[in-house]
Formats: sequence, C-alpha cells, structure tokens
Amino acid sequence: MKREKNMKLKVIPIGGLGLIGMNITAFEYNESIIVVDCGLAFPENDMLGIDLVIPDVSYLKENIDKVKGFVFTHGHEDHIGALPYVLKELNIPLYATKLTMGLIERKLNEHGLMRSTKRKVVKPGQSISLGEFRIEFIKTNHSIVDAVALAIYSPAGIVVHTGDFKVDYTPVFGDAIDLQRFAEIGKKGVLALMCDSTNAERPGFTASERTVGRTFDNIFSEHRNTRIIIATFASNVDRVRQIINSAYKYGRKVVVEGRSMVNIISTASELGYLNIPENTLIDLEQMKNYPDDQVVLITTGSQGESMAALSRIAFNMHKKVMIKPGDTVIFSSNPIPGNEKAVSKVINELSMKGADVIFQDAHVSGHACQEEIKLIYTLVKPKYAIPVHGEYRHLKSQAGIARDLGFDDEHIFILKTGDVLELDKESAQVTGHVQTGALLVDGLGVGDVGNIVLRDRQHLAEDGIMIAVLTLEKYTNQILSGPDIVSRGFVYVREAEDLMEEARDVVEDTMQYCIKHRITDWSKMKNMIRDSLGDFLWKRTKRRPMILPIIMEVE
Amino acid sequence: MKREKNMKLKVIPIGGLGLIGMNITAFEYNESIIVVDCGLAFPENDMLGIDLVIPDVSYLKENIDKVKGFVFTHGHEDHIGALPYVLKELNIPLYATKLTMGLIERKLNEHGLMRSTKRKVVKPGQSISLGEFRIEFIKTNHSIVDAVALAIYSPAGIVVHTGDFKVDYTPVFGDAIDLQRFAEIGKKGVLALMCDSTNAERPGFTASERTVGRTFDNIFSEHRNTRIIIATFASNVDRVRQIINSAYKYGRKVVVEGRSMVNIISTASELGYLNIPENTLIDLEQMKNYPDDQVVLITTGSQGESMAALSRIAFNMHKKVMIKPGDTVIFSSNPIPGNEKAVSKVINELSMKGADVIFQDAHVSGHACQEEIKLIYTLVKPKYAIPVHGEYRHLKSQAGIARDLGFDDEHIFILKTGDVLELDKESAQVTGHVQTGALLVDGLGVGDVGNIVLRDRQHLAEDGIMIAVLTLEKYTNQILSGPDIVSRGFVYVREAEDLMEEARDVVEDTMQYCIKHRITDWSKMKNMIRDSLGDFLWKRTKRRPMILPIIMEVE
Repeated sequence: MKREKNMKLKVIPIGGLGLIGMNITAFEYNESIIVVDCGLAFPENDMLGIDLVIPDVSYLKENIDKVKGFVFTHGHEDHIGALPYVLKELNIPLYATKLTMGLIERKLNEHGLMRSTKRKVVKPGQSISLGEFRIEFIKTNHSIVDAVALAIYSPAGIVVHTGDFKVDYTPVFGDAIDLQRFAEIGKKGVLALMCDSTNAERPGFTASERTVGRTFDNIFSEHRNTRIIIATFASNVDRVRQIINSAYKYGRKVVVEGRSMVNIISTASELGYLNIPENTLIDLEQMKNYPDDQVVLITTGSQGESMAALSRIAFNMHKKVMIKPGDTVIFSSNPIPGNEKAVSKVINELSMKGADVIFQDAHVSGHACQEEIKLIYTLVKPKYAIPVHGEYRHLKSQAGIARDLGFDDEHIFILKTGDVLELDKESAQVTGHVQTGALLVDGLGVGDVGNIVLRDRQHLAEDGIMIAVLTLEKYTNQILSGPDIVSRGFVYVREAEDLMEEARDVVEDTMQYCIKHRITDWSKMKNMIRDSLGDFLWKRTKRRPMILPIIMEVE
Repeated sequence: MKREKNMKLKVIPIGGLGLIGMNITAFEYNESIIVVDCGLAFPENDMLGIDLVIPDVSYLKENIDKVKGFVFTHGHEDHIGALPYVLKELNIPLYATKLTMGLIERKLNEHGLMRSTKRKVVKPGQSISLGEFRIEFIKTNHSIVDAVALAIYSPAGIVVHTGDFKVDYTPVFGDAIDLQRFAEIGKKGVLALMCDSTNAERPGFTASERTVGRTFDNIFSEHRNTRIIIATFASNVDRVRQIINSAYKYGRKVVVEGRSMVNIISTASELGYLNIPENTLIDLEQMKNYPDDQVVLITTGSQGESMAALSRIAFNMHKKVMIKPGDTVIFSSNPIPGNEKAVSKVINELSMKGADVIFQDAHVSGHACQEEIKLIYTLVKPKYAIPVHGEYRHLKSQAGIARDLGFDDEHIFILKTGDVLELDKESAQVTGHVQTGALLVDGLGVGDVGNIVLRDRQHLAEDGIMIAVLTLEKYTNQILSGPDIVSRGFVYVREAEDLMEEARDVVEDTMQYCIKHRITDWSKMKNMIRDSLGDFLWKRTKRRPMILPIIMEVE
C-alpha cells in the first residue's frame, strides 16, 4: 500500500449514528471506497404505516466508480437489511462470513438478486484486498454467530471497527473473541477505533451466553411436568442451540414455530452452525402426539410483535397451538426500548390463560458493557476514538469511557451521520458533510412517503377527516348538488346526526356568502369552507379533523 | 352496625383491575354503597387521538339511591382524574384528606362543580359513617403526601384497602405508615385485604424517599459550578421539598416551571405541605439575574411528554430556557412503561446540546415491593386476599405472594373489572357481573368515539385515504362530472401523477361497466369502485388506503 502525498483516510457514516439501526459506513482513500454493513432501521412511532427505513446512499451512487465492495460484520437486520434495496440501484460485490452470507443470500433470493450479485464468503482471520484497502476479519462474539470485527488497512493507517460485539470467554459455539489479534494489531499502531456503544451506559461485563444455558437447565428441571414454550430472537442461533441441548437432556422433543425462526434455523443447520441431535426436532403437526412434558416449543414473538407466533398463541389466534393452564412460557429476551408495553400485554394474556410466565434471567445481552469496551481500547490503543452504534447518549457515554482512559477531547469524535472525518497519523478533523437521509419503505414504495404524507397520516390518526363535497354550475357557480358531509374517524355519525346536519349548514352558509360577495375563485372558496367548518367543529367538539372541501363542476 | 340475616358484603371493582389506571371500586351492603377512588386511565397506543379514558359508572347510576359517598385514598390522576366527568352525572359527596381534597378542588373549580359538590376533609386516624358502613382512614406512605389506606367496616366484616402505598420508615414529611393500626385492626379480624400490586413482581423493599435527598446532596456537591435542572413528577411534593432543601443547602435559588408543577406546588404550599424557606423561590423571569451555579430549575416532563417544559427546553422550543453546554440535567423519575423511547429522545437531545444528563439513582418508587406486601399481609392477617391495582401479571404475582404466606386458592381472588364478589366470614364467591367499561374522552366528547371510529383512525393512520368523487345525472346515471381522485396520507401526489391518473381510469372503467350492465344501485356502484380501486392500488403499491367513493346527484 503506497500512500499518496498527504492523502488522508475518509470515514463517512452514511447511517447508524445517533439512532439504533441503519448501520452503513463508507471508508474512502484516494480512488477507493469500501462500505461496512448496509442495515435497515425500524420505523419510529411517528412514522405511521411505514414498514421499514433504509439509508439514502446518494454518496455511493455519485462515487460508484470508486466503490469496491460491501463488507459485513454480522447478519442482523440493522446491518444487512437494506441491502436488497441498495443493490437494486448499485451493483457492488459482497464480502461476509458464512452464516452472514447465508442470511444475505436468503434476501437476495427473495428479491431475485442472486444472479446479478457477486459474493465471496470469508473466514475470520482472513484478509481481502479491495482497491487501496486491505480488510482483515477478526473473530468476535455477539448474539448471532459468525460476527467479526474489521481491521481496515489503508495507506493512511489502520482503523479497527468492532462491529457489534461482546467478550464471551466461554461461548456456546466456536471460539472466544480473538483478543490476541486485537492486541497484535494494536501493537502495530492503530489510527482509530470504531467501537460498539450500545451498552456503553452499563457498568461491568456482559455475562456469557453460556449462563443462559444453565438457566434453561434449571427451568427445565423445575418444570418437568408441564409443556415449555420459549420465545427468543430468531437470529440467536446459540440460544436456540442451548434450548435444544436442554430439551435433549430432559427428554423433550423440539418444535419450531414462526417464519423467521424456521428460516434462520434451516439456514444455520444447512451451513453447519446448528447440529440438532437426531429425532429431536418434530413438526408442529406432530406435537399433539406427544404428552406436554415431552415437548418444547421455540417461537418468535419475544418482543410482543402482534403478528408473531407467540402473540397469536397468547390471543387464541394461532391455528395449532393454544395455551393450557400450567404451560411454562419463557421470554428469553429483554424488551427492546419501545416494546415494553407490547411485551407486557402478551405476558398478561398468557398469565390470564393460566400460563406460568418467566421473563427474568433467561437472557444476556450481545453487546459489550463498559469493562469490555475498556478492554478493547486497551488492547487496540488507537490514536482516535470514534464511538459508533447507538443513540447519541450511548456514543457520549463511550466518549466518557475514552476520556477516563486518557483520551483528550481532540482525539474523540462523536460523528453525525454524513460527517466526513479525514484522518491520518498527524491529525483528524471533520472536513465536510455528504448527503444522507432516511428513505421510508411503505409496501412497494421506497421514498414516496415523505414528511407531508406522514403529517397527513398523523392528522388523520388524531381526529379523522371531514369531507365537504358540492357540485357547482360552471358559469353561474350555482350549487347543483350538496353540500354533502362525509366523515371518517371523527365521530360515530349515527349518534351525531345533529352535528353533521349543522356542519352541512355551516358549509351552505359559507357558499351563500361566497355567492353573495361574488367570490368565484375555487381555492378561496375552499379555504373559506375549511376555516368556517374548522372553527365550528373546534367550538363544538374541541377537535380538529382534517377538512377537505371538494368542488365538482358541471357545465 | 347490625347485620341483616345472611347478608353479605359485595365488592365490585368498577375499574382498575387488569390495567394501570381508572381505579374505582364499589362496596355494597344492603341499601348502602360507598365508592373508593374515581380515577382515569391514559389512552393505550391504539386509542388514536384519545385524550383520556374514564370508567363507565352505569352501575352507580342505576343504584344512585344507595350511593353514600366517594372516599379517596390519594390525589393521583389514576385515583381522582375521572371525578369531574362522573360528578356531572352523579351528585355524590366526597371524603378525602386535605391535600387530596385540595387537588380534587382544583379540578372541580375548572369544571364549575365546586358549588354543587358536598365535600369533607378527613384526617388519617379519623372515621366516618356512610350508610351502613364506617370508614377509617389510616396513614400510609406513597409518592404523594396525605395518602391513606382504608379500613371499611361493614356488618359482614372489615375490608382493608391499602390504596397505593409503600412502607417508609423515614419519610421526608410527616409520619411513617401507621403499622400499629394495621396490626390492631388485624387483631380484630379482617375479612379481606385489598393490597396494591404495582411492584408485586419486585423482590425486596422499596427504598425510603429520604435516600433520594442524599442523592441530590451528592449531585449538588459534585456539580457546584453548573446550572442544575431537575425533572420529576409534579405531584411528588416530598421530592420537590428535598430538591428545595438541597438547593437551600448549596445556596441556590429555585425556579419552578411547567403548569402542573406550578399548580401542585401552589396547592401544597397553601395547605401547609411544603414550607419553602424565604427568598428561595424565584420567578422564571428572574432566573437570568442569577449566575448558573446559583439556580435550580424544577420542571415537568420527566416522562418525555412532548409538550412538557423539559421537552420544550430540550428541543429549543421553550421561550425562556435554553440548554447551555455544561448544564446538569437530572431525571428524578423512572420511565413509566411505554414512555422509554420518549424519555430517551429527550436525553439524546439534551446530551447533544452539551448537557450532562443524570438518569440513574435519583428516584425511588412509591409502591410496595414483595417484602412490604408480606409485612402488610402479616399484620392484617385477612381471611381473603384480593390483589388490586395493576395489570394481570402484577395481580397474579401478588396472588403468588399470598400463596407463599399460606393462603390457599379458595381464599385468593383475582377479580376482573365488573365482578361482584360477595363475602362474609363463612364464604366468598363471585356471584355476578355488572356493566363496566372504558369511555374514551376526545376533546369535549365523552364516549362518542368508539371502536368504529378508532378502527377508521387506525386505517387512516396506516395508509391514508383515497376519495373518488363523481356527479351523476339523476335519471340517466350519466356522469356529469368526475371521477375526481383526491388522496391524503397515501402518497406524495406530485410525484405520483401517473398513479393518480390510472386510479381515475380504473374508476371511470368501473362506472362504464355499471352503465353498460345497467347497475343503478348506488351502494352497489360504490362497492364496485371500492373493490376495483382497492385491487388496483394493492397491486401497484401493496398498500390499502381507505377508499371512499362519493356520488353526487344532479337533476
């Protein structure tokens, strides 16, 4: 790798900073760009009707000739989920470890992108060259197997990107995080560390995934006589493995339910990440042939998602599984912020049907807490600290950790999405800003729902709509028909006939006023209807439905 | 009190079981009914546009001649908030402790109900007679001062209702909970205990309110050089008192901001529950005359409520207060389930503006944990356990505690709202069910928004609305004008002109089909438009906006 005179490395977060999700970061040196991850975000509460959110990759489009490849840290939706949408516009080769690639390929298949997309599976420990970059994949631990950190070698220096990680000395499958390699690279001299901030507010160490296995064993031993149902994250293959282990140990068959759970387990099994003892897995249909104390049902829905299997079971909307009094239901998960009420609703419903619900101690996080973050900083000893992956509070918390470790403010960068950080051994600074943003996906539409549509949906959601229609004679502006009043989401019309009648009179009066004062401009008429009807409804109901005057014209 | 032959006491929860909020319970013996509390609930996420929720008190209306009075345990909204709405329909005398009555009277004033409502202030330790009942008020501790438990004496036996409580041996103001009196009444023989379940899932003891004062002292001592802003619950007068104490100790003036905070502090001061040292409180306007290290701002908004003072400050929407880098902002609160994301948003915003945000350890709960619940059971030794106040999971958890204490299932009653539990020393059983329900308040309307309107709002929120209007000639059904297509909240129309044009064609084709096949029935025509337009839009966008065909008629 040869360095051009004074040329610096650019780090450009295209998404993922200041929010959870939508992780995608560009690294640019001279004529080469590589991109780390390509994730989606789930819609915020005020994004009514939106299915998912993907990053605006205009910067990559404009520089497509430079872009050498996408490199992935792991297979979670917030790191791979936007890929099919982006690949439809940009044809870029992909590099990922085996399970991550397996999960990506499922998506490519669904979107008919398999043939057109160049892909290469890499192994932890391996390196690849992309343009002027070399990228080394380093084994880490996370709540999905095959997660890696990246050492990104550029002529201007090395950046270590942890991906999402935790330090698990006793992982359930495969090796512990390759701390030796972090140390070795650190010894060489690292320009910048981009480290996962998700749990940066939490003191201490995240417990090993293995501890959950012990919890399962205890629960299985205490509930020998009941059916056991366990909800967890579909992508946590190690968690599923431990449930299967406990089931096997306690002589139970395992049933898997929920589309994403079935999918991921099948991908993980095919690729050798999940060895299920023979005759352990049975079909949902077979479950009825076994007594309750000989089955475990593993299911999706641990976040209270209303359409997931567990919710459907809880609310008696599942075709094949019903809760029986005495069932043991385990939430092997914590509610993700925002999902607390939905989870609680499912717990209440299950309890009401007589299930014994366990929602404590059967989960550990997949992200590093403060002591682990300190460990990585201490091994890597970067010149610059760039906290990534988290809301602003999390990034700031990691910045505080870096400060405790001796970094001064000039060597810590809390970046914003779109910032261009230029750095080399001499200096680092934000030198510019590129276009970024969030595109909303609603059904087939990508980006066609924007702020105006969302504001309308919000308005409609609050107080509904009232439509005033009338037909005018083209030349005389005489009312030929109407005004008719139609409302939806405003008030139960059958019990508010008077109100609707009066609303009609208000519009009629407004029209008479227009005729009398020779107001013939339609947009003026519509505004007057909007104002008078709006005032009337506010006075009578203290509500502000959307008011939509429609004027039809007949010659 | 004379017992009629074999007559039993009826306990009828009219609201408040299986949810948080809307606490109201009727106790009925022979010709007497007393009602404990009259609270509101805050709307669930799917109750779009709803302001608040109040109980359906049909049962009280039908039995108004028996109803002797409302008795209140404390002044929180979930215990007094529905009162003005109920009093507009039922004129019933009120009995409450001083601060509780002060807060009730604020509401009565707002609703013009002061003159028409009979009120009596009672003291802890005092008893009142209402019909065939005697009610004794027993001092407890809670996150609002002047909270009481009730001993309800009826000819069929005594029921102890804890209200919302915790055991605070070292309260900030006034006495600790009157455990001796609980014991004395327990000695007499108690029929049933209705005990707060809010924290029944939490092991151990809730810490004393006083511990928060020590935390404030520590924070004040560590942040001597910055402005301090503290957000907490307006009604927690003791919390405010401790903030003022710390402020006084550290030589700071106190500014109060947020309507409900100002209101409650003024009521509490007037009634002698809050003695503020002279020259400590200053107006918001005066704040600018003091250096930052000499002021504390106490504010509402600890739950991330978007219109509360703290949120407005965080988002630069407050007219008089702006965050400066270095400000210390303390959340003296925990997010109530469902508010986590809103709180996080405010924390992020404050952090981004350079504030140092403290959101741990500056709060304790106002509700009893498991060991406190066991203590009350052990003092009161009731024959029957009736867990109250909480979602089903909380009630069930308290039932588990009762079981651990030796109650068998026949002596534990997890009631549902509306259940009629009849009990005396010989037996207890649910013998019937009365009408109950939740009335939605939206603006001035009470109960006029029901399931149909909510379902429409949900539909509108998801995908918006598309309206197809046309004017027909009355006799020939010939199209005189239109079809016109208008949409809101569906797609940004300026960028979807083709789609709108095609939608218009679909409606036109459908009408031509109707004319050709002599379909003249309007509702049939509308259904056909709805179907064909719906199919078209689903195929093209995978969205299902509400479709509203409107036909106008001209002679």
